[in-house]
Amino acid sequence: MRVLLINPNTSEAFTSKIQQIAEKYALPGTQVRTVNPKSGPRSIEGVYDELLSSVPTLEVALADMDCDALVVACYSDHPTIYALREITDKPVLGIAEASMHVACMVGNRFSIVTTNKEWEPLLRDAVRRYGMIERCSSVRSTGMPVLALESASQEDVYRAILSASRQAIETDAAEVICLGCAGMAGLDKRLEAELHIPVVDGVVAALKLLEALGGYGLKTSKLLTYARPKWKTLANLPQRLEQAYDPSSIPGKDAR
Amino acid sequence: MRVLLINPNTSEAFTSKIQQIAEKYALPGTQVRTVNPKSGPRSIEGVYDELLSSVPTLEVALADMDCDALVVACYSDHPTIYALREITDKPVLGIAEASMHVACMVGNRFSIVTTNKEWEPLLRDAVRRYGMIERCSSVRSTGMPVLALESASQEDVYRAILSASRQAIETDAAEVICLGCAGMAGLDKRLEAELHIPVVDGVVAALKLLEALGGYGLKTSKLLTYARPKWKTLANLPQRLEQAYDPSSIPGKDAR
Amino acid sequence: MRVLLINPNTSEAFTSKIQQIAEKYALPGTQVRTVNPKSGPRSIEGVYDELLSSVPTLEVALADMDCDALVVACYSDHPTIYALREITDKPVLGIAEASMHVACMVGNRFSIVTTNKEWEPLLRDAVRRYGMIERCSSVRSTGMPVLALESASQEDVYRAILSASRQAIETDAAEVICLGCAGMAGLDKRLEAELHIPVVDGVVAALKLLEALGGYGLKTSKLLTYARPKWKTLANLPQRLEQAYDPSSIPGKDAR
Amino acid sequence: MRVLLINPNTSEAFTSKIQQIAEKYALPGTQVRTVNPKSGPRSIEGVYDELLSSVPTLEVALADMDCDALVVACYSDHPTIYALREITDKPVLGIAEASMHVACMVGNRFSIVTTNKEWEPLLRDAVRRYGMIERCSSVRSTGMPVLALESASQEDVYRAILSASRQAIETDAAEVICLGCAGMAGLDKRLEAELHIPVVDGVVAALKLLEALGGYGLKTSKLLTYARPKWKTLANLPQRLEQAYDPSSIPGKDAR
Amino acid sequence: MRVLLINPNTSEAFTSKIQQIAEKYALPGTQVRTVNPKSGPRSIEGVYDELLSSVPTLEVALADMDCDALVVACYSDHPTIYALREITDKPVLGIAEASMHVACMVGNRFSIVTTNKEWEPLLRDAVRRYGMIERCSSVRSTGMPVLALESASQEDVYRAILSASRQAIETDAAEVICLGCAGMAGLDKRLEAELHIPVVDGVVAALKLLEALGGYGLKTSKLLTYARPKWKTLANLPQRLEQAYDPSSIPGKDAR
Amino acid sequence: MRVLLINPNTSEAFTSKIQQIAEKYALPGTQVRTVNPKSGPRSIEGVYDELLSSVPTLEVALADMDCDALVVACYSDHPTIYALREITDKPVLGIAEASMHVACMVGNRFSIVTTNKEWEPLLRDAVRRYGMIERCSSVRSTGMPVLALESASQEDVYRAILSASRQAIETDAAEVICLGCAGMAGLDKRLEAELHIPVVDGVVAALKLLEALGGYGLKTSKLLTYARPKWKTLANLPQRLEQAYDPSSIPGKDAR
Repeated sequence: MRVLLINPNTSEAFTSKIQQIAEKYALPGTQVRTVNPKSGPRSIEGVYDELLSSVPTLEVALADMDCDALVVACYSDHPTIYALREITDKPVLGIAEASMHVACMVGNRFSIVTTNKEWEPLLRDAVRRYGMIERCSSVRSTGMPVLALESASQEDVYRAILSASRQAIETDAAEVICLGCAGMAGLDKRLEAELHIPVVDGVVAALKLLEALGGYGLKTSKLLTYARPKWKTLANLPQRLEQAYDPSSIPGKDAR
Repeated sequence: MRVLLINPNTSEAFTSKIQQIAEKYALPGTQVRTVNPKSGPRSIEGVYDELLSSVPTLEVALADMDCDALVVACYSDHPTIYALREITDKPVLGIAEASMHVACMVGNRFSIVTTNKEWEPLLRDAVRRYGMIERCSSVRSTGMPVLALESASQEDVYRAILSASRQAIETDAAEVICLGCAGMAGLDKRLEAELHIPVVDGVVAALKLLEALGGYGLKTSKLLTYARPKWKTLANLPQRLEQAYDPSSIPGKDAR
Repeated sequence: MRVLLINPNTSEAFTSKIQQIAEKYALPGTQVRTVNPKSGPRSIEGVYDELLSSVPTLEVALADMDCDALVVACYSDHPTIYALREITDKPVLGIAEASMHVACMVGNRFSIVTTNKEWEPLLRDAVRRYGMIERCSSVRSTGMPVLALESASQEDVYRAILSASRQAIETDAAEVICLGCAGMAGLDKRLEAELHIPVVDGVVAALKLLEALGGYGLKTSKLLTYARPKWKTLANLPQRLEQAYDPSSIPGKDAR
Repeated sequence: MRVLLINPNTSEAFTSKIQQIAEKYALPGTQVRTVNPKSGPRSIEGVYDELLSSVPTLEVALADMDCDALVVACYSDHPTIYALREITDKPVLGIAEASMHVACMVGNRFSIVTTNKEWEPLLRDAVRRYGMIERCSSVRSTGMPVLALESASQEDVYRAILSASRQAIETDAAEVICLGCAGMAGLDKRLEAELHIPVVDGVVAALKLLEALGGYGLKTSKLLTYARPKWKTLANLPQRLEQAYDPSSIPGKDAR
Repeated sequence: MRVLLINPNTSEAFTSKIQQIAEKYALPGTQVRTVNPKSGPRSIEGVYDELLSSVPTLEVALADMDCDALVVACYSDHPTIYALREITDKPVLGIAEASMHVACMVGNRFSIVTTNKEWEPLLRDAVRRYGMIERCSSVRSTGMPVLALESASQEDVYRAILSASRQAIETDAAEVICLGCAGMAGLDKRLEAELHIPVVDGVVAALKLLEALGGYGLKTSKLLTYARPKWKTLANLPQRLEQAYDPSSIPGKDAR
Repeated sequence: MRVLLINPNTSEAFTSKIQQIAEKYALPGTQVRTVNPKSGPRSIEGVYDELLSSVPTLEVALADMDCDALVVACYSDHPTIYALREITDKPVLGIAEASMHVACMVGNRFSIVTTNKEWEPLLRDAVRRYGMIERCSSVRSTGMPVLALESASQEDVYRAILSASRQAIETDAAEVICLGCAGMAGLDKRLEAELHIPVVDGVVAALKLLEALGGYGLKTSKLLTYARPKWKTLANLPQRLEQAYDPSSIPGKDAR
């Protein structure tokens, strides 16, 4: 099974961290490949950044469709998740929703610990959209912006997440912690050892869930919500984007 | 007051229809200006199309920021609405949410009548996101795709909407009908005369609500959800898009 | 356009304040007229007071139906709003719901700051009824009863509202503040300048929204919820109240 | 224990029917007394009628406060229920909410069968307000207006309710039927025998629940929502209504 | 009327306390009988304990079916409540749901005060299941485990409940307190006198509500959710349990 | 990794079918072992049956705790799932919740197709409890009871499920079908080929999700909801059940 992980920002440091972690957890038969677009924002901290990253991310995906499943490795309700589900029936997961599904399997209520405060309402709205608001004890932030995860000392980052997690446990009755940024990848097991409750990294969660779907042979439903987009004229956009309207151009596509 | 209406698809026929209707309903002191991007899809029928239209729509908006309020004239939860709210404090409304607010003021429960069936779950999710699901009696579709609104006989389009509206009234207890596509603009008053309940066109709704906000002097809150995006490196994207990170580049901007 | 604002309590000081503010924000073509009943309670602080004010308010409205739209200027889910929608198809708005619609257009989540603590559950239930509970960050009170807004020093009133608003922002993540009492009218712009987020006065919100509905030519749906009341014997009640059962007696009424 | 049942409309036929049924089900130690106002509407079919009946109903209640518990015998979310809870700590129940509580004790989901179609949205909103929407399978109407319950043949009324109940069972999966009008009182046991599921009359439900509360010695909480109304000037209203602001004037009142 | 109260744990001290309280509040015509299984756990503090107590509780009930109504006297969503509703049409109430219904009749929002912290999420989920989450201000715990209610000084138990109740009132805006453990029975009136708001003991609530249902002649609906279990082979289980599949074996059973 | 699948009914035919399917989908490194209790009901068709099967199921589990993860192979919200989570930190999944998580990953809204009509409200309540009601388009039943899945011709069973699934697709807008009974295992891929949307068997879903959790090294949170049960006297119950109170007796247990 070949899983394509797409980091939708242009930070190659993040990309290689994600690749490393995915390799560590992949099954023997799983090939993981992490890519990022060459154009777009260096980090994603809101909807404007999401939109700047969307077409570059779609182009990267369309160029690399010879895979069996896709991960959008941004901890948000990134709209590219839905667009990818429209253009392929290969399973697609975002790391935020993946982490929440996993959290609901190992605890009753989970909290998300994210970076800057502005993500709190965005992630709360994502939880509601996924229909899991009753299972979410809180969304908390460390106050450290995304790119600080690269520049700050790893120890400081760890302490900030630990402290927000403790508040989630003590004040909000969290039973599981979801790490609310792809850049927090790799800290899960250390936090788990200290907090004594499960800590979920969305990158690993998405990879393992896609392996599960792959092992079962399930594909995205093409009825209604994720129906293939219908052909239409595209003006002044890269040629490759028309490929999405033509199922035969996507490798391994079934005929539906 | 200057209101900029952005048709995010490339159909100039739609653009001029929207301009015509906006002019008809604008207050004497309101200048309306409707634009559309030169690149992107000819119509928007799902999330993939939304994303292809997003950056071109943002570029058009950034080029024309010398206005007081903005309308995103696509009947959906188009992500550009949120991105625009991040980059400016001028009020921004999508025509879907505008029509729903207006519908709630003139009736208890409203139904949306849209084009093709695939829009039903997307619009239902939008209603939930706006928090108005308890006020929504149903989302129904005519089965006619967006572009058929250009090509089909106006009489056929009218009959299809009338028939779906009657089902919404009789089966779902709708008290108000929202026209679920910008391309249906101009049919509201004829439908109203035949259905004997209010029929809301989102383009007019958005224009009138923005005039109301403008008359009150209200601007978008920049706290939390719609905080201005923080500066970051953009790789290989049009220069103009960096403008969003720099408040001073946006005319009439306050300093927050 | 003629907008009738009804202050349902008997405080003429409140009435003239409302008239003043409405005049300030009305469009050139809008005539505003504020009235209050001659009988009933001096202030409205719960459901008992609401009910004492209801028939006097309806009588005042029925005596003054030669208008195009009506505002019920009490910050509550005052039942007279619904009764008026039954007896006329002229648009009717309460100032509480008007402020919430406006708040949702300029921010993601709003808090209401009201007078005495007893209003908190009543307003929370109103928010739920309007279907906007997911958009409401909190309802907070200043502890000052309604009539204190007349007698207390304006500075003290201002400070109390400012302080409750700050708690809503810091503790509840409010992005917009709604002023939860008609008697707070006139403080919005000063608070806005100090809080740096939008502050919404329901009187202005209702007036501007009704101008928007009027400009669009929309009337209240008479299907189902707001159907005209059917004729029945009224025993020992003022003659004028029978008028509500007779559409022809209401000026400017359409024939539905 | 003395239970005061108030029929808020002026139909003495309804009043004596309610008295009859209450007597039939009252415990040996319970004295029931049914009254109706001398002024107000002959039947209640919407919010306008509710408001016309409110002050007369409150006056009747205040004149007869020498009781232990009160029933508002109108199948709706009649605002007088809340006003009475404010002015006394004697338990007060409306017959709609009483029937729903009882229905939830003898089945998982209940349907309400009411009179004319306009009651459907009003009762649905009442169910939501009481927080029982998840337990309500549907609200259906017979199409017969309230007063037809007096004039139509009892057999026709029975058949209409039976038919709507069967639809609720077959189409909506109702497990219990609530009779949605005080005027349907007396038909419950015959319907139950034919439908083979519990049928709940709100008058009996309210009476029996108040006996239960009385037997336990519980009174309405005066904290927050139902706090006693604070004294204020009443202009041109019957003297008796001031009594509500003065706890000492209400017999058997505790000092809170 | 004969009411069977089943204490599903094996503590005879609890059983006799429940009997005492039930006798105190029973109507003259009501015979109460409290039993507990001879096998199973000494106290119930989670789902594992609930399941250990289930079959012994069902056996006790089946041995004593010559009654008119049943109470499951464990403050939880004990699954035996549902199993009993399946095997008989005699009304069955758990003390948790009974207390919540009663609380909703005497206040707008209630808090539950329970024993150890682990009950908080279990009871919150029960409230959601009953559909009353909008009416529940909070679930709080004293930190004292169930059996401490036997061993600790009554004064300490009282103080702990009083303190948690005060927090519920001040922080969560509770208007009514539900005592969240059968072992707290008997403390309600003393707490009520000190807190000045209603305090509800589920044992009394369930008894009085069943008397109300009995007085009305209502039985559990056998349609859908609580349909009688269909006959099937039971391997290696006590003979008596087969009785549940055979309506004729249950005294006083109707033929449905 | 060793996964223990427990069929909680006594049908060995079902048990060996489950084993067969689990073997087919297990990863090379996964050992699956399916067991069923020797005592209890032959099939599970409601809460009474669930409770009869609970202690026997727990005993089987406690006897076989030398595994890494557990499946409760009954398509319901079987309370044993929660009891097992309390007594071990090995991940535990029920097949109903597993199928719903998987369905949400491959489509927007899913329908459940179950056996007899009585399961409809029980499964609807389970969906609500899991917090996924917004993602569930409907619960439908074939009308064939569980044991008919053994006795009826496979072709008839297949046709009945196919027909109910088609109704879910056409009437309820289902995008994914969940097979609502363990006895339907093995029909998924044939249905998928005919319906052209994903069809999810809960047994496979649970197995693959547990492999995913195992591969990530996640265990059940022991904080709050699934805290280990505290020691207490068990009267007249099999000795083995005390083991649950003693972590050291459970193989591979961590020390929390």
